[in-house]
Formats: sequence, structure tokens, C-alpha cells
Amino acid sequence: MMRPFLELIDFEEAKKIIMEKTEPMEKREKIDILSAIGRVISEDVISDINIPGFARAAVDGYAVIAEDTYGANQREPRELKVIGKIFAGDTSKIRINRGECIQIATGGAIPDGADAVVMVEHTSLDDDTVRIMKPVYPGENVSSEDEDIAKGGVVLREGDVLNPAKIGVLAALGINSIDVYALPKVAVIPTGDELVPIGGKLEYGKIYDINSYTLASLLQGSADVHINEIIEDSEDKIKECIKSLKDMDYIIFSGGSSVGERDILIDIIEEEGEVFFHGIALKPGKPTIFGKIRNTLIFGMPGYPTSCLTNAYTLLLPSVKKKARMPYIEKKKEVILAEKIVSTIGRHQIYTVEVEDGKAYPVFKESGAITSMSEASGYIEIPANVEYLPAGSKILVKYF
Amino acid sequence: MMRPFLELIDFEEAKKIIMEKTEPMEKREKIDILSAIGRVISEDVISDINIPGFARAAVDGYAVIAEDTYGANQREPRELKVIGKIFAGDTSKIRINRGECIQIATGGAIPDGADAVVMVEHTSLDDDTVRIMKPVYPGENVSSEDEDIAKGGVVLREGDVLNPAKIGVLAALGINSIDVYALPKVAVIPTGDELVPIGGKLEYGKIYDINSYTLASLLQGSADVHINEIIEDSEDKIKECIKSLKDMDYIIFSGGSSVGERDILIDIIEEEGEVFFHGIALKPGKPTIFGKIRNTLIFGMPGYPTSCLTNAYTLLLPSVKKKARMPYIEKKKEVILAEKIVSTIGRHQIYTVEVEDGKAYPVFKESGAITSMSEASGYIEIPANVEYLPAGSKILVKYF
Repeated sequence: MMRPFLELIDFEEAKKIIMEKTEPMEKREKIDILSAIGRVISEDVISDINIPGFARAAVDGYAVIAEDTYGANQREPRELKVIGKIFAGDTSKIRINRGECIQIATGGAIPDGADAVVMVEHTSLDDDTVRIMKPVYPGENVSSEDEDIAKGGVVLREGDVLNPAKIGVLAALGINSIDVYALPKVAVIPTGDELVPIGGKLEYGKIYDINSYTLASLLQGSADVHINEIIEDSEDKIKECIKSLKDMDYIIFSGGSSVGERDILIDIIEEEGEVFFHGIALKPGKPTIFGKIRNTLIFGMPGYPTSCLTNAYTLLLPSVKKKARMPYIEKKKEVILAEKIVSTIGRHQIYTVEVEDGKAYPVFKESGAITSMSEASGYIEIPANVEYLPAGSKILVKYF
Repeated sequence: MMRPFLELIDFEEAKKIIMEKTEPMEKREKIDILSAIGRVISEDVISDINIPGFARAAVDGYAVIAEDTYGANQREPRELKVIGKIFAGDTSKIRINRGECIQIATGGAIPDGADAVVMVEHTSLDDDTVRIMKPVYPGENVSSEDEDIAKGGVVLREGDVLNPAKIGVLAALGINSIDVYALPKVAVIPTGDELVPIGGKLEYGKIYDINSYTLASLLQGSADVHINEIIEDSEDKIKECIKSLKDMDYIIFSGGSSVGERDILIDIIEEEGEVFFHGIALKPGKPTIFGKIRNTLIFGMPGYPTSCLTNAYTLLLPSVKKKARMPYIEKKKEVILAEKIVSTIGRHQIYTVEVEDGKAYPVFKESGAITSMSEASGYIEIPANVEYLPAGSKILVKYF
């Protein structure tokens, strides 16, 4: 007995329910900063050092005691004894006394005793004696030891997504491992008696498991994906499988196209948890199930590869991104529709398209067709209340 | 003796030279499709199977011999004996003879002997006898075995970038490893006596190695990055290092800020290869060296973290993407400049900015400042001939 779709829910309503039921990760983990790109910081990063950590020369010149320069001018320069040189990176701790100075390069650490730097342009050197032509005040041309970042200051914030610049900031603080939110754990369960694992023999009437690969590649970077072995469309097998995966944040069933599977899955979710909806006014992608068992969100995805993939982009990925606390940034661009599309009133429609020379050509044939994917650059969405898109319309393509 | 920048070259000219000297990878490798996202296919993928591989029912109904249905109508139905059922995925090879038919679900394999499917709507079933109310022609409601993809056909092309849809296509063909262009091999060499590796003790006047981490994170996914240990600013050490890395596609020197390092590197490249330019009319990022030794492109990057990072985005990454045969897609958005910026005529200027509520605030302090990076969402570029950007200007922010 096949359960009819008594109440197809609107696509926008389905999205809203999915997002409402998605709670951001609380679990954290510590990872190496070199593997942290794209990850989300789980607590404020506070600097426990001053940066640069030492007072530096802001110009090339001579580190001096400011008082020694007072009154200096072109006609009456002050003469100081040069007792050494400091380059950026030098660690020698020379000390200067009254009447002495040290030649210093921009970025060089200000020596003990000195409190200002005279620009080289305002000096003239003669052996180990330098003539200062212009006075400096204490602190002039000196960057303070905490000029850039002060010890105890918040440098990055909880929720920040790590990019190369922020990873550089961590390196600058000497931090090589960082607390981030853990990635959601997602199990992908290919179901359906017609499925054969890649590498297996393709007997008459069978097809390869495709959805596990599209889903796993799509979720890469946003989730920790486990691909299960193919399981039978039977209540026992599906129950057992769900039980064995109870630490998962998501279980995604995909691949079955037999009529019975949908019903089995709905029954199991209803028995052990809650079904939020089954059946969306969406084409393709109607037979989509969404529910929850304990803390695990359950998606029953349509078996056809294109439906499964576009559903994953429009419904699953936004949820996984929210759970991972990552922004969901679609790669989208407005282009011109090359051929008219007639859509179905009352159903949100998704069309795969190929973009060439700024024009979008529909390539959607049927949900089961691989060429609906292989030739597609991405997809467009046609809302339920739009019946017809004439050639030449401006449409928003979302790229795969 | 510090070599002066006799001829600063234009930023656009520098970019052009870099791109001209960058030759796309020829080296290939075979990788698992689950690790192939973002990678570039190195030869056309030809299907060696038909998809679906068997003729399928396009509707729910009865697989029949079309001739048995000729002349059928409501008042004079043709009666056929139902000898079995076929669901999607069934592999039983039943054969039908004249006067027989098989109940079949959409997607089910057409049994031997049958050549058409009668829609269930045009039938009525009574025990094991079905009444056909409407004739079908041979091939009606049947999808051919190569309807989607024909054996021998080109399914994906050399140069295609693998995304989830294309990985799904490979899975559909039963291909679990794929020939792709190898990633460029990039060695990042932190140089400079003031650098300390993360985890090391930060002595007076020293700073942590930052650029290795920003460069490695930025190139992740586009290159195979090797971070070298920190080496001294000496001719011998740099020569030895270059010699030990001769199978690299790129060697990136970064981190030194001493005046001598630039000259040492220029001398070595001139001795063993060619210097294409040193010194760009760019702020920050002026002291940039670009050359080639044998087949290795050499970049000498400015040591300051922000200069090194923005240089990497504007000059290095486009080159690495070209070498990897990947598109370089900048994440950019037009926003409103919140505060005026005064720029330097004659130098292409890069400013880090923070974007908040659609407005960009300059956060660039100095190239050495970590906060020029930590507070930045991305950067804007101000061409050499623009002196002043008033508050309220529309500017293009390129996001980190």
C-alpha cells in the first residue's frame, strides 16, 4: 500500500521547518591551524603577548636619549657617539648612556636607555660620531611594544570563520592549535535493491550508487561525512542502521526508488521520533522526508540523482551550514534565459541549466537522467506562482 | 650595499609578466573521486556503458507485445495474462510470449519479448487477467537502454572542474578513480633572522613566522604546499635550499625584512636563472621579486604579513590557479566606502577594509600590523592614477 501525498507542503515552508529544527553545534574540538581554513572559532581568542612585543624604530636613523638632542639645529648640531648598529631581528641588548646613540633600521628593537629615534635625514655621520640637526621628543619615531596588539586584548571572536588572514593572526600570536566548533557528523545511507557499489558488477537492471558521492562531495568542508554500505529496503535493516548511527547529527537516506521505501522510513521515524513533513510541492524533489529521531535529523531524499542533488543544494546544505555555524554562500549570477521554460503552477520548480556566453540553456530532461547533471553548470529556481519564463528573461543561476 | 629600485614596474605590467611566465601543468595523476572535488580532469571521460543500460518502463503499467494491443478500446478490450511483476531494480529475466504481459513499475527493466508498456490508467485488472483499453505502438512508454548516455560517448571533457554534479556523473559510469592534472608543488621558505617558528620561544626582538601559514592556507586546494623550515638570510643557505627543491613548481620566499636579503635573492636568481622584475609600483608590496630558475618560478614576497598576504591574493594566487588550470574566482562585492581614502598617485594601492552593514571601513594601519589583517574582511585596490576616494564611493571589496 503506497501512502498518498495527502498534504504536499510549500517549498518555502519546508525550508523554514528545516532551518527551525536545525540547532547549531555545541561540540568543540582543537585542531591545527593549518587544517583550520573555513572552520569556526568556538571561543574568543585573547592575546597573551604584546605585539610587536618590543618598542621598535619607526624610521631608519639613530636611537637616542631625546634630551641629548634638545636645541639641535643645522648650525648647532648635537654630536653623539655611535656605539653600535641594530637591524630588524637583532636580539643583542645594547644599552646607551648620555651622549651615546645607536644606528637603527626601521623595525629594529629600541635599545635600553634610548627613548626616541632621529631620522637619518636629519643627521650626518663622521666616523663614529653623528651630528644631529633636529631635536626629537621622547617617544618620537618609536612604535610602542603593544602598538599593534596588547596582551589581554580580544583578537578574534567566537563565531569568526577562519580565512588565511585570520590564520595569520593566530600564527602571529604563536597559537598553532585552535578551538573550533566540531563539524556535524553526517551519515549517508544508500538504500534500494537496484543499487550496486562502484566497482561492483552492473547486472541487468541495476545502477551504480551515485547519490552517496554527490552528497559526500557537496558536504565536504562543512561536515564529517560517513558513507554507509548500501542497505536493503527493509524495516529491520533500516531500523538497525539508524540504531547503529545514533551519534550522528544527520542521517541521509538516498537512492531507493521503490514505492515501499518511503513508507517504511516514515513509519520508523514516526515510531522512534517525529516526522516534520513528507512530500514537498517541489519538482523534482517531491518525495522528500524530514524528521528527527532523538538528536539526529533525518532526511529521506529522492533517489533520482538530479533530484537528490538539487534537494541537497536547496534544503540539506543550508541546514548543515547552519549546524556548522558557517555562512551559506551560494555561487550565483544573473544571466539571460536562452529558451522559454513552461513551469507547473503550484510547484516550486528546479531546472538544471548550462551557461554559455552569459546565456542559460535548460538541460533538464528527467530526474533520472545523468545528462541532466553532466551538462549542467547549475540550476535555477522557479517559484510555485510562476507559470512561464519567456526566452530573454533575466534569471539567477546558482552554480554547482 | 642596498640595491635601489631603479625601475619600479607597473602593477598591471607585473601581473601580465607573471601570467605570461606561468605555464599550465602537464603532469597528471589518478585520484579517488571522493577526493576529487575542485580538481581538473586531464582527459575526456568516455562512457564504456550504456545508461540506463536496459530498456525501462517510462510509466507504471503493463509490459506487452504491442501487436497484442492493436484494435483495443473501451468496449472491445484485449485480454492478456499477467505472468509476473517487475519493480525498479528487479533482475529476474522473465520472458513474455504472445497473449502474456507483466505488471511493471516506472523504471523497471522491460522484460524479454515485450516492446511497449500500456499505462495502468488504460487497463483494468481481474485476477491474473488484464484488460487493455487502448493500443500501444512498439516502443511506446519505453526508454531505450542508451537513452541517457550511449556507450562510447564523451560525458565529461578535459579541463572540466569536478563539482558534486560531475562527481555524480563519474559514479554513474562506475568510475571511482579519475585522471586529473597534478596540483602545482609549492615550497614556502620563511627567511629572516627575526623569525621564530610557532611553538618556539619568542625572544626579545623576534616575531613568529606568520607568512608560511597565510600562504599555505591561501593555496590550500590549489596547490600541494610544503612549508620549509626557517632559513638564514645567507647566500649559501638560500642557494642550498633552492637546490634541494628543484622539483618544485614554485618557491616562495617570505618573511625576511632585512635589506640584504632582497639583494642576495636577486643575485642567486640572476646567476642560475632569470629575474623578470624586482620592485613593483605597489603599496604595500613594493619589494616583490619574480623570476625563474630552470622550471621553478620564484617569488620573493615582502616580509610584512599584510603585504605578503595581499600580494599573494593579487599576484601569486592567479598564477597558481592558472598553473593548476583552475578558474580564479574572487569573492567580491560592491559596497559603499564609509570614510575617505587618500592614495598615492603612481602606485597601485591595496587597502584592507572591514565591511559592516554594507559599508567598508579602512583598517589598514601599516604593513607590519597584525590588526591590518585581524580586523579586515578583505581588501580594495586603488589604481595608480586615482588619488582620492571620497566617503560614499562605490568600491569593490575582494574578500579574504
